[in-house]
Amino acid sequence: MKRAVVLLSGGLDSATVLAVARRDGFECHALSLDYGQRHRAELAAAARVAAALGAAAHKVVALDLRTIGGSALTDAAIAVPTHAAGAAAEPGIPVTYVPARNTVFLAIALGWAEVLGAADLYIGVNAVDYSGYPDCRPAFIAKFAELAALATRTGVEGGRFAVRAPLIALSKAEIVRLGASLGVDFALTVSCYQADAAGLACGECDSCRFRREGFAAAGVADPTRYRDAR
Amino acid sequence: MKRAVVLLSGGLDSATVLAVARRDGFECHALSLDYGQRHRAELAAAARVAAALGAAAHKVVALDLRTIGGSALTDAAIAVPTHAAGAAAEPGIPVTYVPARNTVFLAIALGWAEVLGAADLYIGVNAVDYSGYPDCRPAFIAKFAELAALATRTGVEGGRFAVRAPLIALSKAEIVRLGASLGVDFALTVSCYQADAAGLACGECDSCRFRREGFAAAGVADPTRYRDAR
Repeated sequence: MKRAVVLLSGGLDSATVLAVARRDGFECHALSLDYGQRHRAELAAAARVAAALGAAAHKVVALDLRTIGGSALTDAAIAVPTHAAGAAAEPGIPVTYVPARNTVFLAIALGWAEVLGAADLYIGVNAVDYSGYPDCRPAFIAKFAELAALATRTGVEGGRFAVRAPLIALSKAEIVRLGASLGVDFALTVSCYQADAAGLACGECDSCRFRREGFAAAGVADPTRYRDAR
Repeated sequence: MKRAVVLLSGGLDSATVLAVARRDGFECHALSLDYGQRHRAELAAAARVAAALGAAAHKVVALDLRTIGGSALTDAAIAVPTHAAGAAAEPGIPVTYVPARNTVFLAIALGWAEVLGAADLYIGVNAVDYSGYPDCRPAFIAKFAELAALATRTGVEGGRFAVRAPLIALSKAEIVRLGASLGVDFALTVSCYQADAAGLACGECDSCRFRREGFAAAGVADPTRYRDAR
């Protein structure tokens, strides 16, 4: 069975990606990063999701990105922005952008893929709702695949890596429908940027907002547990 | 003063690179990775070198690559190869290759550069003595710079990153001469793949061998402290 490394944050998107990789016939090796994110409940969610979706392995690599800071997700001095329901976010790149995060995550996934003999990397980036994040764009993903061929033993020996981003062009509603069709139990996932230790969501950050609107637009019941149940 | 991020392992090569970056007029922000390498004495060496060469800052980012293994440097079950003096190493990619290491290191350096507003990354890769490592080749370095422009806020806003590898085409003897000419105190550095806690070198691994031969060929006194002084 061919192996794939699947980046699994524990959120709705990456859970759906894991389900897609399984549907595509891969033995899935799920990789989570403990990078000092304030929403640490997502790591527990990742473990639940990996087990529920039959991952062959789940590893959590520790990488303390708080050392370099620069993001609301890794620097306690930068607040996570919240918006009233239906309000637009600020234009431009959000302060929740973690500098070079997807480059770092894909690089670590690439290293593990070499060790496993896997030629396929899956990542749940999305260029629609997260269009403000530079490292969620198709051109970035394509360039990383070019780099991977040059960076590795596999590439020297004539092999190539496929970097698969099956959600990149989907709306959040389409992602919800896709995940539901593949049997993802969204109740296991945590998307909130400031989820508490129990995984309860704030309901107000960008990630909560996109998620809530996605369930509504998809016509799928939203199983998210909010701190202030409304 | 323009800022640069300089990857600093604590070895001879990266110490020379830091000296080059300083000569080039940059305020140098040195970055070391505590990735679970067996030769941990190099981290203490990196701190000494950063101080001696006037780095504006020195950060050590923890990233546990032992989680994925796959290299003699990160997996205690894989031995570091040693060779008799003058003997050739095995052909191909050495088992000391850490899968995707330079991709990971440059990605983290890129993240810190974004936080600092630095547009220049320095890395001590070398395609001559380390020609067996895929991620030490000029094509890899050039491709990473292309990726960096796509991966970042800086790139979206029209900026670019320069990835500088000033040693890439030099022999070890030329690196020794360059470092010496820029005032690097090589006694502060540790190159050995299996240095002990005190920083004493084995004298037998590939890294020791290249280093020893480099000092000899350069006609520079070798200040390396070996466990078995010979």
